[in-house]
Amino acid sequence: MATVILKPGKEERLAGGHLWIYAGGIRSVDGSAEGGDIVDVRAADRAFLGRGYINPRSTIAVRLLTRRREVIDERFFRGRLEAALALRRRVVTRTTASRLVYSEGDGLPGLIVDRYGDLLVMQVLTLGMVRQEGLIVRLLQDLIQPTAIYARNDAPVRRLEGLPLEAGFLAGEGPLLREIEEAGLRFRVDVAGGQKTGFFLDQRENRAAVEGYAGGEVLDAFCYTGGFAMHAARAGGRVVGLEVSAEALAAAEAHARLNGLTDRCVFQEVNAFDALRALAREGPRFDMVILDPPAFAKSKAALPKAAAGYKEINLRALKVLRPGGILVSCSCSAHVREDVLLAIVAEAAADARRQVRLLEARTQARDHPIHPGMPETRYLKCLILETM
Amino acid sequence: MATVILKPGKEERLAGGHLWIYAGGIRSVDGSAEGGDIVDVRAADRAFLGRGYINPRSTIAVRLLTRRREVIDERFFRGRLEAALALRRRVVTRTTASRLVYSEGDGLPGLIVDRYGDLLVMQVLTLGMVRQEGLIVRLLQDLIQPTAIYARNDAPVRRLEGLPLEAGFLAGEGPLLREIEEAGLRFRVDVAGGQKTGFFLDQRENRAAVEGYAGGEVLDAFCYTGGFAMHAARAGGRVVGLEVSAEALAAAEAHARLNGLTDRCVFQEVNAFDALRALAREGPRFDMVILDPPAFAKSKAALPKAAAGYKEINLRALKVLRPGGILVSCSCSAHVREDVLLAIVAEAAADARRQVRLLEARTQARDHPIHPGMPETRYLKCLILETM
Repeated sequence: MATVILKPGKEERLAGGHLWIYAGGIRSVDGSAEGGDIVDVRAADRAFLGRGYINPRSTIAVRLLTRRREVIDERFFRGRLEAALALRRRVVTRTTASRLVYSEGDGLPGLIVDRYGDLLVMQVLTLGMVRQEGLIVRLLQDLIQPTAIYARNDAPVRRLEGLPLEAGFLAGEGPLLREIEEAGLRFRVDVAGGQKTGFFLDQRENRAAVEGYAGGEVLDAFCYTGGFAMHAARAGGRVVGLEVSAEALAAAEAHARLNGLTDRCVFQEVNAFDALRALAREGPRFDMVILDPPAFAKSKAALPKAAAGYKEINLRALKVLRPGGILVSCSCSAHVREDVLLAIVAEAAADARRQVRLLEARTQARDHPIHPGMPETRYLKCLILETM
Repeated sequence: MATVILKPGKEERLAGGHLWIYAGGIRSVDGSAEGGDIVDVRAADRAFLGRGYINPRSTIAVRLLTRRREVIDERFFRGRLEAALALRRRVVTRTTASRLVYSEGDGLPGLIVDRYGDLLVMQVLTLGMVRQEGLIVRLLQDLIQPTAIYARNDAPVRRLEGLPLEAGFLAGEGPLLREIEEAGLRFRVDVAGGQKTGFFLDQRENRAAVEGYAGGEVLDAFCYTGGFAMHAARAGGRVVGLEVSAEALAAAEAHARLNGLTDRCVFQEVNAFDALRALAREGPRFDMVILDPPAFAKSKAALPKAAAGYKEINLRALKVLRPGGILVSCSCSAHVREDVLLAIVAEAAADARRQVRLLEARTQARDHPIHPGMPETRYLKCLILETM
């Protein structure tokens, strides 16, 4: 096995808990290593730091799999998968769809596995994990016995690893449109064509939390296929859902029919920014506004413009909320930290001369566990505030 | 009414949502204002910023009550108290003890009101609020009809406002030892002598969350009067509670008896640092470790030493946890931000060569609402992590 030696001081990032080694931090590689090979990582003073896989083509040259001197073999990956499944048995309830493996959060960098009933959907995002793909498929079959495993290896991030974008079955086969159940609500998921692997599993616990506050007049300003809207409607809310994509809107309407909630939901094909501006002119009218927009900041450079966008929608939302109303303000941009989003909401409230109180600062569902040393693994924010 | 004019640029803090104006940010005061008077606040360019109360003796010279041109009278305070009570009806369940008013979080800077059954305990922490004390007492009697209102005006922070430290009944009277019920568990609260107003109400939702993970061998390293310990024991855990104060330990033991949980709890009068060090030498043994220490950082200057303390206890805790074990890591120091505590835990995990996953990043219970423009109002952190 080859050994990667870091430049002096470059071990600090790892000491802080992070798992990535950038190409620029490497002093030398002792021995020969091909892309995807397992390597040892040592500090400049030769202290052992951990073991991971290397990709000389990627800016992230090494991702650590362990900090121990353990063999990276079938037993290792079986152990990690078993630990991942044990966590889900602990925290996932009342759903047939969940994330089984969340990359670094589960000590398996580059691997995503989602379950939709008896179908597994995999994303293998790094060369090192591509090398293990066959083994992972075999282990998942052994541990879970799915009827099929489908690869959504079409995420653009694969290009950074020199990997092609592709999709298809890795084991078994079957329909790619699946009906799932979440807390008693039914959703139809397009595993091949939908966002992520077909459904925003990461908002599951937030949907349940929001349902606890819902009622009266509810505005879901970026409703997509109606995840939050169904929960709010079931709680007794009269929901206005806004969505700019005709396709997503059709899915939201189908979900309302599927759950017998058409009499409580109105969906409008409209740009949320325009609609919020128009509604704000009419004054307070809603008891709840849900803001779950697509990522405004896809990169650090886009942050200032994104901040202006978040402030705009939060300001308008506050203007259409009645006293005592609930604002649900989400951001899925990893670049927009929670304290930044909260500061934006605070500024919007001051501008609107409204007093608001933060009741919950939520993040992604617990089947998307966060790596405490990698703030980027905590990408989802869901603030729940009450206005006065 | 006098008008406080800020120095140029000093309005920015308020634009960010904050409610405090420091003495150094004031250019002039138009008109005369005594300590506790209501004043208008304007920017250097005379733009109206809000209305609040002044205390020339305090570093925090003005605290805003509103950003609107509304009259600060009985109707105003009644409205704020009604909004505070409405929030509690929404978020407080299954307890006879809760916080009814949380200072800036409820738009009532300087006022704390806690309920223990039919007894209210007030803390009036600023001169401006002392001026309203009689009115607040009257309004609380009208809105809630408590049998008594007791003032715990002995918090040292009152000195910064030039106020004496004192305690006593403001209305009615009765015993100062009260039994409360929280989620079916019973606790005896010493309203006059206990920490805060007698009970850590702020951890209520965290105690419930932790109960959901509890089981097996549980170590509660700073157990105080046994709040977390009772919940963990009821969930089936065999709890070892450590506490350095003999008095608190006696209360914890009394709570175990009161709840019929003595067979599941062992309490030890011991310094948690020493005990954790000794246990860590023995190796992994626990399925859950709860760390809810007193504030290590009482000031910003104390932060480096506090960080070392937090790291020490988290490192030892990780060493006594079995794979799959749960670490509950709290900090009530407002100076230790959540991301700082999380980074400390990540470092400790790297040192221990343990993989950990953050499942929940919790804060204080929702009857302690956070002011989004004042990070200092979000003082409590409760991280729930799973080890691998």
